[in-house]
Formats: sequence, C-alpha cells, structure tokens
Amino acid sequence: MGLLIRGGEIVTADTRYVADVYAEGEVITRIGVDLDVPPGTETIDAAGKYVFPGFIDPHVHIHLPFMGTFAKDTHATASQAALIGGTTSYIEMVCPAGHEDALQGYELWKSKAAGRSACDYAFHMGVTRFDAQTQAQLREIVADGTTSFKVFLAYKGAFGVGDEELYGALTLARELGVIVTAHCENAELVAQLQGRLLAEGKTGPEWHEPSRPEAVEADGTHRFATFLEMTGARGYVVHLSNEAALKAALSAKARGVPLGVEVVVPHLLLDKTYAQRPDFEGARYVMSPPLRDARNQKVLWNALQAGMIDTVGTDHCPFDLAQKDMGRGAFTAIPNGIPCIQDRVNLLYTYGVGAGRLDLHRFVDALSTRAARLFGLFPRKGTVAVGSDADLVIYDPAYAGTVSVATTTVNNDYSGFEGWAIHGRPSVVTVRGQVAVRDGIFVGDPARGQLLRRMPEGAAARGLVPV
Amino acid sequence: MGLLIRGGEIVTADTRYVADVYAEGEVITRIGVDLDVPPGTETIDAAGKYVFPGFIDPHVHIHLPFMGTFAKDTHATASQAALIGGTTSYIEMVCPAGHEDALQGYELWKSKAAGRSACDYAFHMGVTRFDAQTQAQLREIVADGTTSFKVFLAYKGAFGVGDEELYGALTLARELGVIVTAHCENAELVAQLQGRLLAEGKTGPEWHEPSRPEAVEADGTHRFATFLEMTGARGYVVHLSNEAALKAALSAKARGVPLGVEVVVPHLLLDKTYAQRPDFEGARYVMSPPLRDARNQKVLWNALQAGMIDTVGTDHCPFDLAQKDMGRGAFTAIPNGIPCIQDRVNLLYTYGVGAGRLDLHRFVDALSTRAARLFGLFPRKGTVAVGSDADLVIYDPAYAGTVSVATTTVNNDYSGFEGWAIHGRPSVVTVRGQVAVRDGIFVGDPARGQLLRRMPEGAAARGLVPV
Amino acid sequence: MGLLIRGGEIVTADTRYVADVYAEGEVITRIGVDLDVPPGTETIDAAGKYVFPGFIDPHVHIHLPFMGTFAKDTHATASQAALIGGTTSYIEMVCPAGHEDALQGYELWKSKAAGRSACDYAFHMGVTRFDAQTQAQLREIVADGTTSFKVFLAYKGAFGVGDEELYGALTLARELGVIVTAHCENAELVAQLQGRLLAEGKTGPEWHEPSRPEAVEADGTHRFATFLEMTGARGYVVHLSNEAALKAALSAKARGVPLGVEVVVPHLLLDKTYAQRPDFEGARYVMSPPLRDARNQKVLWNALQAGMIDTVGTDHCPFDLAQKDMGRGAFTAIPNGIPCIQDRVNLLYTYGVGAGRLDLHRFVDALSTRAARLFGLFPRKGTVAVGSDADLVIYDPAYAGTVSVATTTVNNDYSGFEGWAIHGRPSVVTVRGQVAVRDGIFVGDPARGQLLRRMPEGAAARGLVPV
Amino acid sequence: MGLLIRGGEIVTADTRYVADVYAEGEVITRIGVDLDVPPGTETIDAAGKYVFPGFIDPHVHIHLPFMGTFAKDTHATASQAALIGGTTSYIEMVCPAGHEDALQGYELWKSKAAGRSACDYAFHMGVTRFDAQTQAQLREIVADGTTSFKVFLAYKGAFGVGDEELYGALTLARELGVIVTAHCENAELVAQLQGRLLAEGKTGPEWHEPSRPEAVEADGTHRFATFLEMTGARGYVVHLSNEAALKAALSAKARGVPLGVEVVVPHLLLDKTYAQRPDFEGARYVMSPPLRDARNQKVLWNALQAGMIDTVGTDHCPFDLAQKDMGRGAFTAIPNGIPCIQDRVNLLYTYGVGAGRLDLHRFVDALSTRAARLFGLFPRKGTVAVGSDADLVIYDPAYAGTVSVATTTVNNDYSGFEGWAIHGRPSVVTVRGQVAVRDGIFVGDPARGQLLRRMPEGAAARGLVPV
Repeated sequence: MGLLIRGGEIVTADTRYVADVYAEGEVITRIGVDLDVPPGTETIDAAGKYVFPGFIDPHVHIHLPFMGTFAKDTHATASQAALIGGTTSYIEMVCPAGHEDALQGYELWKSKAAGRSACDYAFHMGVTRFDAQTQAQLREIVADGTTSFKVFLAYKGAFGVGDEELYGALTLARELGVIVTAHCENAELVAQLQGRLLAEGKTGPEWHEPSRPEAVEADGTHRFATFLEMTGARGYVVHLSNEAALKAALSAKARGVPLGVEVVVPHLLLDKTYAQRPDFEGARYVMSPPLRDARNQKVLWNALQAGMIDTVGTDHCPFDLAQKDMGRGAFTAIPNGIPCIQDRVNLLYTYGVGAGRLDLHRFVDALSTRAARLFGLFPRKGTVAVGSDADLVIYDPAYAGTVSVATTTVNNDYSGFEGWAIHGRPSVVTVRGQVAVRDGIFVGDPARGQLLRRMPEGAAARGLVPV
Repeated sequence: MGLLIRGGEIVTADTRYVADVYAEGEVITRIGVDLDVPPGTETIDAAGKYVFPGFIDPHVHIHLPFMGTFAKDTHATASQAALIGGTTSYIEMVCPAGHEDALQGYELWKSKAAGRSACDYAFHMGVTRFDAQTQAQLREIVADGTTSFKVFLAYKGAFGVGDEELYGALTLARELGVIVTAHCENAELVAQLQGRLLAEGKTGPEWHEPSRPEAVEADGTHRFATFLEMTGARGYVVHLSNEAALKAALSAKARGVPLGVEVVVPHLLLDKTYAQRPDFEGARYVMSPPLRDARNQKVLWNALQAGMIDTVGTDHCPFDLAQKDMGRGAFTAIPNGIPCIQDRVNLLYTYGVGAGRLDLHRFVDALSTRAARLFGLFPRKGTVAVGSDADLVIYDPAYAGTVSVATTTVNNDYSGFEGWAIHGRPSVVTVRGQVAVRDGIFVGDPARGQLLRRMPEGAAARGLVPV
Repeated sequence: MGLLIRGGEIVTADTRYVADVYAEGEVITRIGVDLDVPPGTETIDAAGKYVFPGFIDPHVHIHLPFMGTFAKDTHATASQAALIGGTTSYIEMVCPAGHEDALQGYELWKSKAAGRSACDYAFHMGVTRFDAQTQAQLREIVADGTTSFKVFLAYKGAFGVGDEELYGALTLARELGVIVTAHCENAELVAQLQGRLLAEGKTGPEWHEPSRPEAVEADGTHRFATFLEMTGARGYVVHLSNEAALKAALSAKARGVPLGVEVVVPHLLLDKTYAQRPDFEGARYVMSPPLRDARNQKVLWNALQAGMIDTVGTDHCPFDLAQKDMGRGAFTAIPNGIPCIQDRVNLLYTYGVGAGRLDLHRFVDALSTRAARLFGLFPRKGTVAVGSDADLVIYDPAYAGTVSVATTTVNNDYSGFEGWAIHGRPSVVTVRGQVAVRDGIFVGDPARGQLLRRMPEGAAARGLVPV
Repeated sequence: MGLLIRGGEIVTADTRYVADVYAEGEVITRIGVDLDVPPGTETIDAAGKYVFPGFIDPHVHIHLPFMGTFAKDTHATASQAALIGGTTSYIEMVCPAGHEDALQGYELWKSKAAGRSACDYAFHMGVTRFDAQTQAQLREIVADGTTSFKVFLAYKGAFGVGDEELYGALTLARELGVIVTAHCENAELVAQLQGRLLAEGKTGPEWHEPSRPEAVEADGTHRFATFLEMTGARGYVVHLSNEAALKAALSAKARGVPLGVEVVVPHLLLDKTYAQRPDFEGARYVMSPPLRDARNQKVLWNALQAGMIDTVGTDHCPFDLAQKDMGRGAFTAIPNGIPCIQDRVNLLYTYGVGAGRLDLHRFVDALSTRAARLFGLFPRKGTVAVGSDADLVIYDPAYAGTVSVATTTVNNDYSGFEGWAIHGRPSVVTVRGQVAVRDGIFVGDPARGQLLRRMPEGAAARGLVPV
C-alpha cells in the first residue's frame, strides 16, 4: 500500500519546492507534480505545510546506568516522544562502565531496544576501555553495523579513557572506517576541581559549572583534535558548549582535521543562571558540560548558522526530581541530564528559524542531513529523495503551543523548558511510509523501529571518489 | 515534448540516489524509479553516470573594457564554453568606469548579452560611483531583477570606491535586500607599491604579486567585513586568495557577519611561480589578487571542504597574448585574467573530488547550490528537484582527457591550464530541458540563454521565516 | 650644588636595590652605598620609600582648540599637576586643523609652552594634511628635534587623513627615522553612525559609545598596522580600548610589525556605564575611543602586565562642565576628554600594583621607561642611571588619600575619579636635580621645563647595532 | 680588594650609559663618573666596550644519565665554557628517573656540582613522580633554596608525569611559591609515532622530527597552560620551538595565565634540514623538541624581540659522536642534545643584535634579566646595580671569530655550530668581583661557583605589593 503526501512544500538542506511525494512500501519512489497514484492510496494533504525529512537526534541516552541509578526512559517512552517531536531516528550511546565487557554491554543495549522502539535507531559504541579483548569485540560490533564509537575524556575512573586507550581506539577506528564521537573535558581537572569545591563546602548545583570550567572543555577539545590529526581518524565533538572550545575545534577544522561539531539544545537556549536557581531547583539544569555563561549563546548560534557547528542534538537523559535529590548533599551526586528529545525540533524551529538566527535549510541540515552524512545513514535518512526511507515530517508552521511535561511521553516529572512557547509542530510524522504521529499524538506501531546497521566509511561512502 | 534522463545517479548538495528525472517543458516535473513517460519522449541513458544540477559560475567577465583594451570573449564564445564544461548559468560583472553612467552601463551590458548567450545568465551590478543619480539608477536596476552589486576596494581612480561610497552602497543594498560582492584589496597600497616597484626598475610580471601582498588583501577583507557589520548588509568576498585574508573573513563569519566567501580556480591550482616564468610567459598568469605562495593552497582547499569557503568561481577574463604584450614594459599594463570558464568543473572534479580534497556533495554545493542560494537563483537553479529548471549535467567520471586551448570555444590563444589532465567530463548538458552539449561539442540553441531576473532578498526569501 | 637622595629603594624597569643617588647639576653622577658628598649638599631622606625614575606621560593635550572651544589647561596648570602626581615629562600633541599650516601650528604650540612648563616636555607633531609644503615643513620640524608624528584615522574633515596621506606620512617617517602615533578609528564609519543615531533621536552621552563601536576601532588598528607593514615605518597605537583592537595589534606585533601599544587610564578603570549616568553626568565621561564594556578591562590589564601593551598614558584633556554642556542637544557636540594627568601614577600604583594586577617593574616600565625608549628620550629619561637626568620620584607607599578636583592644579571643575581612594603618593619630585614637589604641593620653579629635542631614530639609536 | 671597570658603556635591560663600576668584595657598591677608588684597586679599562650583567642560562644539563649513557660534561668543563662565553650563572635540571628517590637525586646532583663549578649555579628540581614521599622531599628541597620545578609531559615511562601528578605538582608549587618549568610534548603521541615510524623502517635521524610533530608540542603547551590556569601556579615552557605551540602559549598569556616562554639557541638558528644530513651527520642535530621547518624561525625571532618570548636558553647537553652512534639502528636511541653553553651569547649577539632582529636591551633582558626575575635570582643577578653581584661581562663588539669545538672547554668532539662566524666576544668576565676570563681563556678560580639558594616567591618578591 502506498502513501501520498500531497502538495506540501518540500524543504531539505538544499531544495525547496512544492510537489507530491509518493512512497511505495517503506521508501520514496516518486516525487512530482500531481502524481498519479493507485486507487486506495493513503493520502495526506500537506498544502500549506512543510515536508521535512525525518529529523535525526545523534546524541541520546535511554538505557543508562549512571551515578548509581538509571535514566528513567524506556525505548518506548523515548522513541514515541521523539516521533511526536519530529525525530524519526536517534543514535543512543552504549555506555558500559570501564570494568564491564564491551560486547556484553552492546548486546544488553540491543536487547533493551529490540522490539520496543517506535522509530529507527542506531548506536554509538562506547569505548570505555581499550585492551586486546575489547579491540576484538569492537571489530565484531562494527561488523554488526555499529560504525561509530564514543569516548569520554572526562569521567575518570568510570567511562573515561587515558591517552593510550584513546590512541588505540582512534587507530582502530581509522582502520575500520569508523567515526569517533567524544566527550571532551579533561578528566583529571574535573575530578580535582570537584574535590576542591566540595572541600570548601561548595556543594549546591550552582557549583557544578565552576567544577568544569570552559577552559577544561577547551583543553579536552584541543587534545582530541590533536589525536585525530595524528591518527588520521575522523572525529566528532559532542555537546560543545562554549567559545573557547569552539575556537579549538574550528582551528582544527581549518587545518584539515576531519572533525564534526555538535551543539545540544540546552546550551543554545539555557545558561548557567538556571543552575543557580534557589531551593535546589538548579539541580534540574545540571548536565555536563554545564550550562554556561550566556555570552556563549550568540557565539554558538552564529557558528551553527555559518555551518561551522554541524549538528544539533539533545544529550537527552531523563532523571526525575527524586533522582536529582540524590545530590542535595553534593552537586557531584546529581544525576546529569536535561531531557528534551521531544522538544528539539520545535524549539529550534521557534527560537532558531522563527527568531531569524537560523535559515530553514541550515535547520534541516543541522537537525537531520548532516547527522545522516556523518554517521553513515545517508542517503537512506536525512533527505527527501527517491530511494530514501519515507521518514517524513509534515510540519505545521502555524501551530502555537507550549512545551510541557504534561504533553510528552518522556518518563519524567519535569521539563527543563516547561512553559516555553513554541511556534510550529509536526502535523503528521511517518516512519518508513507508515503514519506514526498525528497532531501531537502517537498513533503508530510501537515496535516499528529497526536497528540501523551501517557500513563503515570508505572513500567511496564519503563521496570522495567516484563509485 | 518531454526529456527523460534515465537511470543516472543523481547527486546534489544533500542527496545521492539512482532514479529517472523527467522534464516537461523547461522544468523538472517528476523524479522516480522507472518513470512512465509519454511515447516519443527524448531519452538520455545516464546509467553509470552522475546527474548533477547545472553548475553556476558566480564570477565571470565577458564584455570588459579594461586597461585600454577589451576582453576577447563574446557572450556566444563564453557561454558555449561554459556549457561544454558543465556550467549552465553564469553571473557577469557589469563594470562601467567610475565616470560613466551606471544605467547606461547596465543597458550596454544587457544589450551585449541579449540573444547571444547559449545559457542563462545574470549580472552583478558594478557600483563604481555612489551619488544621488547613481542611487536612483541602482533602484531601477534592482527593480529590473539584478539584485547583487559589485564593489571594488581596489582600482583607485578607475572602478574603486572610497569609504563614503562604500557605506552608501551597503546601506542601499541593505534597504533593497541586495547582496554586495567585493574585490578586497586596499587601493592606495596597491597604487603606492606599484609605483615603488616600477621606480626600482621592477617591471616584469613576477613583480605583480609583490605589488599586491597578502596583507593588503587581508586588510581589504577586514575593512569590508567591518562595513558589513556596521550597515547590516550581506556581503560576499570574491576571489579570496590567501590565509591572512581568509582569517579576516572567518573571524567575521564567526561573529555573525553575513559574509560569503569565494575562491577561484587559479588560486586553488596555480601559484606565484607561474607568474615568474621566463620570457614573459609569466604574463599569462597575471590576475588580481595575484597567484600566491603555494602554502596558501592547502589552506584554501581545507576551508573549501569544511564549507568555510562557500563557492568556487573563475574570474574568467580572457586577454590574448598580444594583449598581454601591452605590459612588456611594465607589469601594471598587463591585462589581468586567467580564463577558465570551460575548465572549472572538470578541474575541480579531477583535482578536488578525485584527489580526495573535496567530497562529492561539497563539490556540487560549492560549484552550484551555494551560488544559487547566495544570489537569489534558488531553487530555480542549483539543485535537481521538481519545479527546478531542467539544467542538468550528465557527467561521465570515466572520461580521461586534457585541458587545451584547442578544444575550447573561449576566444583566446592560450590556456593557463594547457595540458593538465582531467578525469571526468560532461557527457550531456541540458539548458531548461533542451540538450546543449554532447561529449564536448556544443549542439544546442546559441540563443537559448535568458537573463535571470531575481527577487531582492527578504526574510522569507532567505528561508528565515515561514512563507 | 648637588642633591643627594639617601637610602631609598631604587626601582626601575629592571633593577631594585637600596642605595644613595647623587646628582651634580642636572644629572645623576653617582649611585652607591653610603656615598660621600660635599658639605652643604641638599639631602633628601628616602628611607622606607621608593625612588622611581620620573614618570612620562606620552599622550596629553594642553593647548587644544577642539569642537569650537579650547581645553582649559595652560602649560602651567597642567605641568604642575603632572609633577604633583609624579610625572616629570609629558608629550603633547600639536594639532593644527587640516586646513591650517603645519609649521605655524608647531610654532604656536611651542610658543604656548615656552617658559610656562614646570617640567620637561616634547611634542608629537600632528600630521593632519600631507602635501608637498607640509612635507617640507615636517622635515624642518623633525630637524628641530620633534621626532614623532601623530595621525588621526578618525575625525573626518577635521584632523583626519585619508589613505594617500597616511601612506605619505609613513613613508616620510620611515625616511626620517620618526615614529608615528595614530588614533585608530575609521572616520567614515564614525561619521555615518553618528548621523544615524542622531537621526533616530539618540542624542545623549550614552550614545557616544555606540557611535564608535569596538569593531570600528579594531578596523582602524588593522589598517594602520597594514600600512606600517607596507611602508616599514614604526608606529604606535594611542589609547587602545578593547579586545578586538588589541587582537589586531598583537597579530601585527607577532608578525614583526614594529608597533607600540598604549592604553590610557580611563579605559583601565572606567567603563561605559559611567557615560550612561543620568542628568547628563555621563558627559563627563565622554572621550574617544569611548569607555567600553567592562569585560575589556581584564583583557587590557592582562596584556599590560604581560608587556603586550607597552605604555600607559592619559589622553589628558580638560573641558569643564560648562563646555560639556555644549553637547546637551547632541552627544557629538560634547568636547571629548577625561583629564587625569595628575592621577595616572597614583591610580596605577593603587589599582595596578596594589591590586596585584601589575608588578612593580612593569609599572615603572609602562609609565616611564618604555615611553622613553619608544620616543627617543632614553636613556636621558626613563631610568635611574648615571648620566640620566635627575628626574626622580621619591614615592611613599604608605600614603593614603583620595583623588579630588580640590587637590589638583588642573584647571577644571570636576574629576572623573573624584573620591577614588589612592594608596601611595610622591613625597618628593625632582626636575633635573631640583626639588619641584613636596607632599602634594608644587614648590618648584614654574619655568624650569625645557623642550626635549630628540634625535631621529637610526639603527644605532634603536640599539640594533653596536655604536 | 676592589675591582674597577672603567669607562665602559653599561647596558642593561633598561639602561645605557657610560660610567665606572666599582665592586668591593663580591658586590657592586658604586657606579659613577670618574669614581675615586683606593690605591691598588684592580682596574679594567672598558672604553669602547659594553659592560653587560653576567648572562644566565636557565636551561642546561651537565650531570645527565640519559638513554643508557651520560652527558659528557663535568661541572668544571661546562662552567668554564659558560664563562668563556659570558654566561656567569646557569640553572641545571636535576633529573632523577621516575623510579628513583627525589631527595637522593637532589643530593647527588648537588654533590656533583659542589666545589667543581667556576661560576654560580642553581637547580630546577625535576618532579618525575608525585606521591606523598616525594611531596615531603620537595618541601625539603624548596626549603634548601631550590625554588623551581621541572616536569616532563613527554618521556612516557621515564621522566614523564601524568595528569594527576601534574596537578599535584602544580598545586604544591602554588602553595610553596615555586615556578614550574615544563617540557611540553604529549608523551603518548610521541611514543606511538616513534613506534609507527620504526615499524615502517624509518630509522634515520631525519625521522626524529616527524615523530614529534609541531601539533604534539602545541597540544602539550595548551594542556600545561590549562593546568596552570586551574591551579593558579606560575609556569614556564622550556624550548618552545614552533608557531603552533607559540600560539597556545600567547593565548594563555593574553588571558592572564602567568606563563614564561623560553626558546633555545638551536631552534632560532638551525632547522630540520640539519637533521636530514647524510651519513648519519644528522644525528648531531637530534634534540627534543626537534629542529623544525625553517618558517618557524622568523616567528620565534619576532616574538623574542616583541618580548612575547621571555628568555633564550640552550638546553645544553653534550653527547659525543660515539654516543650518537648508539642510534644508528633507530633514531629513538640517539642521545638528544646540541651543546652550545659557550656560544649562546655570541651567537645571539651576532645573529640577533647584529642582524637587526633583536635590540640590545631585549638581548640583555632575554639572556639575563628576565631569567633572573622569573627564577628568583633578581636583583642579585641579571642587572648592573649597586648591591648586585659583580658578575660582569666586558664585551668587545669589534671581535670577529668563529665557533669551533677546538676553542671550547665543553667536553665534546663536535659543535653544532662549527665554523659559524661570530662578531663580538667577552673580553673580560668576572664572577662576584673576581676576573674569571680574559679573551677567551679561563683564568679564574675553578671552584668559585656557589649554589644559588633562592627564596620562594611571595607577592612581595614578585614586586606586586610594597615591601
């Protein structure tokens, strides 16, 4: 059975036109003016609406043991929230602890997701230790279609890797054609500053930011870029939060280091004063890298619009207020995260496109296309084209509403953006040719999501040479 | 009558897939798998080939009185050369001298092109004086659909404008929604250094570069960016040639100045040693800004691949050897130009994509899409999409040949790239649904080209707010 | 008759020791432990005090026709204030308007100062026009011992010079071994922004800063540095006020451009909120470049301590409240200036050395030695050494007081630093071996000051080759 | 018995004048014109010569077990060579291996030097491990007057420290008022690149530089600066060799990190082509960081003249040709070092001052004064002033000669600067009032040198507040 999206204005990273889109089965097979379709085709009238490629969130946490507790979402709650907000694919971090077995971790994460995600998904494989056995397991994991790694320069003694492991992981990644994403904060400095602040009795959430200063993230970014340069691996800085770190990243890009840069929604829209709110409300706004001084926001928006920052993710990671309370005695015990998997697209449309900070094509590029290209999902995902998956977002720019924890399927009891106005919302969202969402309500198949197995990158896949 | 491009691999700035493309009349109406088309449809088999959107050269000179002589091309010779090389639209500079009437100049250039161009074209209107009358005329010219200006910070006493005129032109441009392209070299410093070198008896073409040092271009770029920042106008630096100037441009981009950056083919592939060739052969390689020290090339390629440089043009401007000879006594009298309108696409494919410096999507983006978006031609030009003009390049990546003045329609007696190997060439090029080129031979309608009238940019046109 | 300073702690840019200093006539002839001196020698007990070289203010205005009025000081009032505050030499700008005769201007300024200054002084010769006659006159003026020029990139139509004049002035300066000081703001942009703001009804002193944004000063600084690089002249940026301009200057220094950088007291200690004070009080704080956003201050202090900023001047220029009132209708008519010739040393000692921002040697270097070296006064001035003029400041670090218009000889009715606490003050100040000040009171010869005739700089004078 | 230096031109970092200098015992007691001195005073006629403060080499190795062998010098051979070349104080690195006891190492180095050095000396205490015992020992060592540390970010498994040890060492240093000098190359990257190159059969000395690329040093410099910023300690980068590392250092300085920067003679005058010389001659030029691409030299000279680089040392470390031969099979086994303790002053005078790259005061400052100030030797050393040690260099700028291993007391069989012309040489060198050298010959007391015990730095010592 086919699906026809009729008369919408199709907007991708590089096109904009009014046409019909027809999907037969799971993929788009025709795009044209006044398409003839078989009788009985399900038809969605998109007149007056945008038709965007399904959006991709390159940075989410769903199953996550962290700081002695677990993030609250299941793959059901998170994936349905994603879809309601227009995100049709997400990439989750597999994060075994450094002392755990990598392959067991990978299988665990796969088993958690299997059959429970309403939309497609992939994994970044966390490399939290690098020894001979892990190396062999990573080869298996890449062969299974998980072709991106995640490393932490932060989180000493937990997820973090040292220089030797980092070099090893990058060398393997280069050999296998795998991109390496990195959390870039210097582990030692964070640990020391945390200790120093706590020793001085500075225990509230407002001290989280000073325990991870901008310079510490800048140094991690600089080091990661240098290691990429020396190994020839491709890299990607997750949740870059401030001007000093951006300078380190852009300097590397300018000298030819293949480095993608991600910013996440909270750093674009919130600042450190949120974490300073009284009565422990600040704990809701604790994430790492922390919310920063507001002056950084203009810098991040400018770089995003200029394409110097590649993607916008969320670092979605819900911990509820009871869990946040674990850190009442010490900010270092506050589980980190500001969930927003459902809100990314609408917030960026409203405060980016609507506010004149982001043009409509860069919006699609940053929230969908570039993630697809960087992570081997392209052109299956990230564009509206013949042969691509019919993951489509029919978007109503006339909608006006607000963000609220009351209207999300995310399993949490607060939203960091509660009450924020949004202008624009998906009317219809499809997953591989099947309607999943209508007007804010999930109406799809809760088990439709598939693991996206990806090819490692070779020169051909990068488009660097003719196929 | 329709045209069907069957089974090619369509590659745009953000997509890549195998499909058929069908054009009815001048525009693409359908894209799909195994399209049904009316009997008698002209069909081009594109299997094993790329289908690119027609390429756009944002910086050419055809009719050009310069240094007491005229560039050699006509709109016939240049446009057919462009098409043979895969360029289906070009933007020519209208360059009246500072003492000439702007509107008369505009009409003159239009009359030269009308009916003589085989492909579509637009103009950048040169603002070489800014007074009340000129301002009124510029409003007329913009209303006529020419919505980009060109200013020269160089060429004191000829095309150049001073600070007051620059401010005026930018203020008008902002009001009208016009983008301003700029040749950024400090006029006074060039004039003084030329005088100093000639006075020292340094008259050969090898002294052209020292008369326009990198720092002089960097300063012009810095000044232009500052004026954009102060006026709020959108700008575009043409033929940026070196690292110092690039730093000035990127610094402006990073602080939010809306500034496009163009590099031209000669600066990517040739260096100043070409202009130092003996027996006055160096004169063939005299252009402004000059060919630079080779170390700049890697910097330019890196920034191009990273998208920090937006576009690749040519600054095509043919003067033959007899004209170059005018400067035997003084390099300042050598007419400037290294023609390459026919070679841009093939050279960039060979030495960019083929050499691993440029990915295939960035190649399309830089040579077509981004120019279309910056200059108001989008989405009519610059992409392969329903509703867009059927300007298509069916490209054969298996072709191997060489650049030669013997195989171009450019009206010149030398090529700056004579004998350079190329790998890849257009098999077929279409102009609005009509075949214009087959295998290096122009076979189309020599008068098919139309003036592209463009809308001034408003927020809507930029995609910054919903339409 | 000799003068003995006994037992003080001598502190220069590079030494610190306790000893006696003996001057015979006007110069220091011996330094040692327990010096034997002739009976009847005047002796000053400096135990517990510092002995600094006399401080030099490289940037003051005394006689100044500006904006239709005159600065309030005479050479008597200004020079005595300088001495009370520890400044024993100043360099005044000779500022004829662009339409006035340079040599007549020079003679006028000389005549105003002659016989009326209590301390030594020199001139920067303003080059406000550059034609053949002016060039000849400048040669005479340099031959008279005035070996530094001043140019204004700002003040279009008044003092400002265009690119051609700037090039000419720098070329002459290089030939003559003269250093060129420059006020670096783009004249056209300031004029345009002033016009725009006034047209919008923004007439108060708080709009002065937005009429001369940081980027405008940065661009002027960049241009000046480029012109220095192209001509080979030595330059000096006066009153650099912000981070963007500093980056332009440091980038030039790092690539070898011989460029000195001056900051003035108001930019170190005051910010733009002062100019926003209600009831026109802001007018007291109008100067150019304007007081800036406070974030720049830390940057300026850091660069000063690191020696990247060379000198600290004042741009002393007193206009009284009645004169400031001329600008009630339009900020562009507020005479510019925040006088502080008497307060520079004490403020920098208190808020620099005392506050831990500046070490004691860098303090002496920035307020005395480096100005002496840059402007050809060294080693006659700027150090405590045998053969140097006995301009000495016996400084009491234990003094505590406040700045007030009530305790200055500056001819003005307000102080920009009224009520600011100071810790430290000169106990005794000498001018060429003669006591001029004791404990805040001028007790010297009001006509002792001499014009300091300087040698143009050659390689030898720069210390670049052996004498 | 006194010593009189008569009629020389005294040149320090901030003064220049002709006078007599008189020392009574070990220190200067009087400076003046035509000084009266007791009969029998030893008098040195300095007319026509410079009188410089004794030069200080802040970075030398004498006793050094390294790579399985020992550097060739004794404190006798090195100290006499230093004196012949005008260096009257040196600071040697105490370098126990990471597994050795710090205090035993310190005592060993002291015992090696005691009674054998002809000139004064101090130590940088190598911190090659940081645990509780070491921390206690470092406190003792600082109490003994050795108030500077040395850390290696390079030399994994030998001298190198990890992030945790680095943080600990810097925290202790801040507490004690100790400055920390650092060799800034990322240990892991060097080790990996060495392994990779050797595995590829790249074993010759020309591969030493590629095993320690510029980016690796830049990253180490960036990291060190970040750790200083986070701990508040004062730091000093030794032997900075390239532009990328310099940018990291200057960026830190500009944001207020208290960071000194040292360049060493080989990086100013030699480039990597020396290490590429055939027949294993390149091994003579192997040091770390390696000799770099020649383009870095202009950058280093510019920064040195501008005072952005503080000091010039040598990293003197002689291994003879037989020792160098140990690395015939693998460049990693070539003992590192290019000895030049005797040649530093003459080479910098000739190729710096004489060549117009360095002014005479900056020369004294960089080779003497600034090292004295940074390392707590000031004002006892580093200047010519009453109360300072009479370590004086009577320098003959008219001397012309060449560098040769034949005319040095350094215990080696080659010189990296063999045959280089020098213009200028010390005529007489004194150590605390006693003549040690005349015209290239050591004539002094071979055991005169003393260990310079230094005070830890407090605010007072830094000159930040009044004493």
